[in-house]
Amino acid sequence: MKIKASVLGASGYIGGEVVRLLLGHPNIDLVGISAQANAGKRLDEVQPNLRGYSNLVFSKDPVPAEVTFLALPHGEAMRVVPTLSGKVIDLSADFRLSSQESFSKYYKTDHAAWDLQKEFVFGIPELHRGAISEAEKVAVGGCFATAAILSLRPMKDLVEGGAIVDGKTGSSGSGNKPKAGTHHPIRSGSFYAYGPFHHRHTPEIEEQSGLSVLFQPHSAPIVRGVFTSSYLSLKTAMSPEELLAHFEKFYEGSPFVRLSSSPPNVRNVACSNFADIGVAADGKRAIVWAAIDNLIKGGAGQAVQCMNLMYGWDETTGLFQAPALP
Amino acid sequence: MKIKASVLGASGYIGGEVVRLLLGHPNIDLVGISAQANAGKRLDEVQPNLRGYSNLVFSKDPVPAEVTFLALPHGEAMRVVPTLSGKVIDLSADFRLSSQESFSKYYKTDHAAWDLQKEFVFGIPELHRGAISEAEKVAVGGCFATAAILSLRPMKDLVEGGAIVDGKTGSSGSGNKPKAGTHHPIRSGSFYAYGPFHHRHTPEIEEQSGLSVLFQPHSAPIVRGVFTSSYLSLKTAMSPEELLAHFEKFYEGSPFVRLSSSPPNVRNVACSNFADIGVAADGKRAIVWAAIDNLIKGGAGQAVQCMNLMYGWDETTGLFQAPALP
Amino acid sequence: MKIKASVLGASGYIGGEVVRLLLGHPNIDLVGISAQANAGKRLDEVQPNLRGYSNLVFSKDPVPAEVTFLALPHGEAMRVVPTLSGKVIDLSADFRLSSQESFSKYYKTDHAAWDLQKEFVFGIPELHRGAISEAEKVAVGGCFATAAILSLRPMKDLVEGGAIVDGKTGSSGSGNKPKAGTHHPIRSGSFYAYGPFHHRHTPEIEEQSGLSVLFQPHSAPIVRGVFTSSYLSLKTAMSPEELLAHFEKFYEGSPFVRLSSSPPNVRNVACSNFADIGVAADGKRAIVWAAIDNLIKGGAGQAVQCMNLMYGWDETTGLFQAPALP
Amino acid sequence: MKIKASVLGASGYIGGEVVRLLLGHPNIDLVGISAQANAGKRLDEVQPNLRGYSNLVFSKDPVPAEVTFLALPHGEAMRVVPTLSGKVIDLSADFRLSSQESFSKYYKTDHAAWDLQKEFVFGIPELHRGAISEAEKVAVGGCFATAAILSLRPMKDLVEGGAIVDGKTGSSGSGNKPKAGTHHPIRSGSFYAYGPFHHRHTPEIEEQSGLSVLFQPHSAPIVRGVFTSSYLSLKTAMSPEELLAHFEKFYEGSPFVRLSSSPPNVRNVACSNFADIGVAADGKRAIVWAAIDNLIKGGAGQAVQCMNLMYGWDETTGLFQAPALP
Repeated sequence: MKIKASVLGASGYIGGEVVRLLLGHPNIDLVGISAQANAGKRLDEVQPNLRGYSNLVFSKDPVPAEVTFLALPHGEAMRVVPTLSGKVIDLSADFRLSSQESFSKYYKTDHAAWDLQKEFVFGIPELHRGAISEAEKVAVGGCFATAAILSLRPMKDLVEGGAIVDGKTGSSGSGNKPKAGTHHPIRSGSFYAYGPFHHRHTPEIEEQSGLSVLFQPHSAPIVRGVFTSSYLSLKTAMSPEELLAHFEKFYEGSPFVRLSSSPPNVRNVACSNFADIGVAADGKRAIVWAAIDNLIKGGAGQAVQCMNLMYGWDETTGLFQAPALP
Repeated sequence: MKIKASVLGASGYIGGEVVRLLLGHPNIDLVGISAQANAGKRLDEVQPNLRGYSNLVFSKDPVPAEVTFLALPHGEAMRVVPTLSGKVIDLSADFRLSSQESFSKYYKTDHAAWDLQKEFVFGIPELHRGAISEAEKVAVGGCFATAAILSLRPMKDLVEGGAIVDGKTGSSGSGNKPKAGTHHPIRSGSFYAYGPFHHRHTPEIEEQSGLSVLFQPHSAPIVRGVFTSSYLSLKTAMSPEELLAHFEKFYEGSPFVRLSSSPPNVRNVACSNFADIGVAADGKRAIVWAAIDNLIKGGAGQAVQCMNLMYGWDETTGLFQAPALP
Repeated sequence: MKIKASVLGASGYIGGEVVRLLLGHPNIDLVGISAQANAGKRLDEVQPNLRGYSNLVFSKDPVPAEVTFLALPHGEAMRVVPTLSGKVIDLSADFRLSSQESFSKYYKTDHAAWDLQKEFVFGIPELHRGAISEAEKVAVGGCFATAAILSLRPMKDLVEGGAIVDGKTGSSGSGNKPKAGTHHPIRSGSFYAYGPFHHRHTPEIEEQSGLSVLFQPHSAPIVRGVFTSSYLSLKTAMSPEELLAHFEKFYEGSPFVRLSSSPPNVRNVACSNFADIGVAADGKRAIVWAAIDNLIKGGAGQAVQCMNLMYGWDETTGLFQAPALP
Repeated sequence: MKIKASVLGASGYIGGEVVRLLLGHPNIDLVGISAQANAGKRLDEVQPNLRGYSNLVFSKDPVPAEVTFLALPHGEAMRVVPTLSGKVIDLSADFRLSSQESFSKYYKTDHAAWDLQKEFVFGIPELHRGAISEAEKVAVGGCFATAAILSLRPMKDLVEGGAIVDGKTGSSGSGNKPKAGTHHPIRSGSFYAYGPFHHRHTPEIEEQSGLSVLFQPHSAPIVRGVFTSSYLSLKTAMSPEELLAHFEKFYEGSPFVRLSSSPPNVRNVACSNFADIGVAADGKRAIVWAAIDNLIKGGAGQAVQCMNLMYGWDETTGLFQAPALP
């Protein structure tokens, strides 16, 4: 018996990837896709890559299901969640933070359903596997945040001072609405920084890693991928081998974390749910690099990974397709 | 009971994609990968995307199996095939042509095993489904050739004169050895033609389509994908709808051909086995566009599709993963 | 004494390139830039590459000058030209066609100032050097059209039947307004055809080349550049050397045409006013390739080249900066 | 009377750009280009963008001149410099460092002409304008180093502790020899780090900035450009305005430094000699971003800028062509 699933906000890149993964998931029956702006359109009119995979048509309103994925803009999920029954997997930022003050400060809005926040478990399985397994509601970690948190959480007790996280993202992270920053003639040869000090993923990274963080995002002319380089000061000098061993122990039993003592490449994780993490140490100086696909491990794939745990399925179900090269 | 498979030339892009698809194929047990230059290396040292998927190590010599895939350079397959037992699926050009004269002219070499050529069926399932189903040996169609043949074969009896095929390929078609034409600083902003009139895929296209062809390839700064625009003169004027209907009838029952009256885009077929074909007519003038992934439908995927037919499995087995977007 | 120049529509890519070239032109004093939407802004707020080169501020209305460049959308130039005095160099399509019927058919609008059309000389200096030298008004050739016309015009008396022109353009040809087709996540790995049979440059190519043309444009994931491959049937067989010699004679004295018997590459002409043209022949079959920078030789540079002729200056003045590599 | 100049190593990207700039320089007569591997070839056979600009032919040995530019690999310049007369502008690392110990450690070779090192002035005009003006020999700063040094030197007395410099480079920085890291199919969608802690530009940055530095380079899929993000701790909190004012004072009279309180973009400096620098402060935390063209301000352009000073010409002579957009 398959579980019925529904996707809200299935027009966007993250929503489209959730739909794609659910269509290929052996235990799921995708019963509904909704998106107000595209109501009445066939799936493949909006997501042309999915032509031939489904006859679903976008509905205006959410389709009830046993598990509902929300790929809605920040601020919208909080209005919809109270109306849903069954399991909820939210890919927005609305329920990720445990501090209402941080939420208001960084998202510049009041929260419409703060009392529901405590029902949500933060959705990075490598850190909260047990809690997610028992959760009815999960707030999936953000793209930059997932890369940074997976890099920093194992370092928490090893370092003094905070961390500097220099992040780089591909253009798909800006969504599917054309805008100046993703205009091909400009973005193609561009590399630039934006939003110093106060990016919205900062409080999420700090809450989950337990470290204070200076986070500086950059835009790179790739399509898929987030890469973070995190700089930290060790309490006591470690060899590269010791640091790698520490990470290997920390992520034991995590099938989607691939560790190395050399830097990863976003290319090798594109279209996959892997987080490739590399570590380096030189005396008391440490660097941790992380590469993920922003739409998969930083979104749709991590959401499905959470669902697998919520239903007691193997964590990799429907997610372990090998990425293509080149 | 799974079928044992072996891949020769598993270091290259096409070979690597055959390995990836076979690792994910439900009926296959991949027992060997070989490549002289990489003998002794682990799979993921050469194909880093496959880290975590297999413990196979490259051997120097072919590993015997029930079905052997050859992803070797042109001219090498003909020396190896005579030594193989079991089913053979060759991705080189060595056994594609039925005319020895054409082979010698275009590949500038004598053929070492021409008597075996007649044992090979040409490997484009949409045209030779029955013969492939009964074949022991298949010569899989080339990348440009597959796009052009799928475009032209249905036109054979409708046109007068030959066809002009303007083709464009991504850089992965040049293989994984760095060279001047695929040097990133140059290729990135490049678009250029090469090899007018006498490209090696010309005789393959002419034999399989039944039309005389002027084929002009171009290099585009994409990684994956072949796009062809074919120009033809109709014997009698047709409407766009009539032409589309003609193609729909021709490709009935072909799950990997997606037809349209508007042009396809290589992006929508990247990393998939689809051939997206569009047709247009204006009086007696006709244009047929085709977009495929050069490494999948133009190589590894088509090879697996042939294997599925050779074993009586559903044509789409292990191949129907939806492509990602963007 | 420098000539005073003014640029209308200086916000766009073509307008911005006209401004850039005029700022570096030794005989020109740029006195005004206008663009309704950006009135009041400094030049470098809109064209950030020009920071440090000028203190000009966008005006709402055209600034009077001795020579006015119009880089306005099709349909707007025809309303402004009647109000201008002095020399006029129009980069829109409004005055390029000599047939009012063609104009109405392809641009789907009535012409507001058709009686002025006959005052305009068509602006491709290599074909109309003398007339441009004496003109007060020039209608600069379009980007695709320039590449195709320079390829086809020398072939006019050598061929039978028409020409098939397969064109490819970079994303800057779509202008600086973000839109679906130039959204970086999509455009990056895309290659596709559009507008078969009836692209607006078709009548311009046919009028200027004297040949009937099937023109099929494509979108390539480059930023700058137009590449055309033109296919023709010769009345009598020619050798490649004969064809090249014919072109060399035709373009004698044209400093911006660089000829070859091998295909050009858009990379080598990027940011320059060159038209690199290659020719090939095989019996009666001929191919002519052309590569230009769509914004320079296909726009701003050609406009300045026309101006140089109109003022009796050397054709290359201000335009002969060598392009960079890579 | 023009000055005679000669370029050694004119086959590479940096050497080719020196040639291009010198061909357009009003005070220079380029009398020789040399490169052993290409001896006897015409300039445009190796640098196809320069077709039509010069009839120079590569010589095997250096051509004597009043000023000689060396664009040779590290380790070769030190063998050639002792044989040269006249002014010398070296673009290699051989004479940049004042510490022989650092040189041996980072370049893993003995120095063949260390006694000449003290005759060289370090070639970043913004820091050493006076000394360069009087120098006979200049060692031009490296690409990453130039971006980092221009970012850090003004901060020297404001900070406590060292700096973390996160750098990103385009593929042209790897030179014109095809290699695995610049193979288009791989590099296109790649972003990765390399060489942590011990990149060769580290001692150059430290010597010139006066700060200890953790430098981490990354490879981005752009062609031209270096971008650095530098993280520092201020001794006392500063406002963004104060920090910007400090930089404006520091770089007063430097025509190629463009300052801002927002991040720059490598796109806006491509093919120009500008260094666009942005600064941000938040309490005691400071970030300085720098964007340069690695081949121009990080190489050929800076070399010409030094030459201009050495001859008492305006610093911008031959270098102030506005960069194109997009």
